[in-house]
Amino acid sequence: MPPPTDEELLDLARLLGAACRERGVRLGTVESCTGGLVAHVITEVPGSSDYFAGALVTYAYEAKVALAEVPPDVLGAHGAVSAQVAKAMAEGARHTLGVDIAVAVTGVAGPDGGTAAKPVGLTYVAIADPHGDDVRRFTWDSDRSGNKRVSAAAALGLVLERLGGTPA
Amino acid sequence: MPPPTDEELLDLARLLGAACRERGVRLGTVESCTGGLVAHVITEVPGSSDYFAGALVTYAYEAKVALAEVPPDVLGAHGAVSAQVAKAMAEGARHTLGVDIAVAVTGVAGPDGGTAAKPVGLTYVAIADPHGDDVRRFTWDSDRSGNKRVSAAAALGLVLERLGGTPA
Repeated sequence: MPPPTDEELLDLARLLGAACRERGVRLGTVESCTGGLVAHVITEVPGSSDYFAGALVTYAYEAKVALAEVPPDVLGAHGAVSAQVAKAMAEGARHTLGVDIAVAVTGVAGPDGGTAAKPVGLTYVAIADPHGDDVRRFTWDSDRSGNKRVSAAAALGLVLERLGGTPA
Repeated sequence: MPPPTDEELLDLARLLGAACRERGVRLGTVESCTGGLVAHVITEVPGSSDYFAGALVTYAYEAKVALAEVPPDVLGAHGAVSAQVAKAMAEGARHTLGVDIAVAVTGVAGPDGGTAAKPVGLTYVAIADPHGDDVRRFTWDSDRSGNKRVSAAAALGLVLERLGGTPA
């Protein structure tokens, strides 16, 4: 999948905003590899403070534990880039940020940090809401900046899907 | 000041990364109006996890209090867009994120939310490090997206200045 353009990301953020308003939900993000891009895109939409509470950019191990409440044993057992940690980040951020829905992204943006088991581009996107949680696994093949952008699109898309706001 | 281009922001983030590495400091951001853009730009640089711990995007009032440890009486007395809150955000985030240097941005990005006393474009950028803190006041005249970008450049520039890494 080619990385989305600025305009494509903004279109997703606009749809997301409309869906959050329609359903009266408050949203937050918790981001590792995207580094704040998801929050940045959401807040490009005027009036987004009505439904967007904030974000945690948990780049460091310590931030994942202290801010996103990821249990150290889960990080130790599965590593920062894993389905288990993505789900724990979303659940923790939902609590820390006091939101209805939290979406989490953790991955290997590259160019460094990849391994045979966890190559550059491997990314998990998870969501937590009052109904439970869900997680998706992707392997992107772009560069660092492109991997961040396509991960951000996947995060926005997963929230839209969860809210039933995905365009046909 | 015209909003910086993507490449100009990335150039600042590269200089910032080099300065952080040279001085061995860990950095974090706490962002209101920029919504995560400063963190996003910092993490566009490969290897930024070596010096960037993370960010707090404190869009909601509750997030400013709970995550950035801004005292409610300071928020009540001066409002979210004020020099006092910017400094409190930087000091709080320095503690919450466990970093050497935290940079904070709070402002009225627009198009809504402006008042006669606090017009659209009014922005405070503050920094806290072991030597104390500093805060700057700006009034930008761009649109929402442009105001976010020029605020991000000001935040990166203030950290660079504090680190003595500003280009001549």
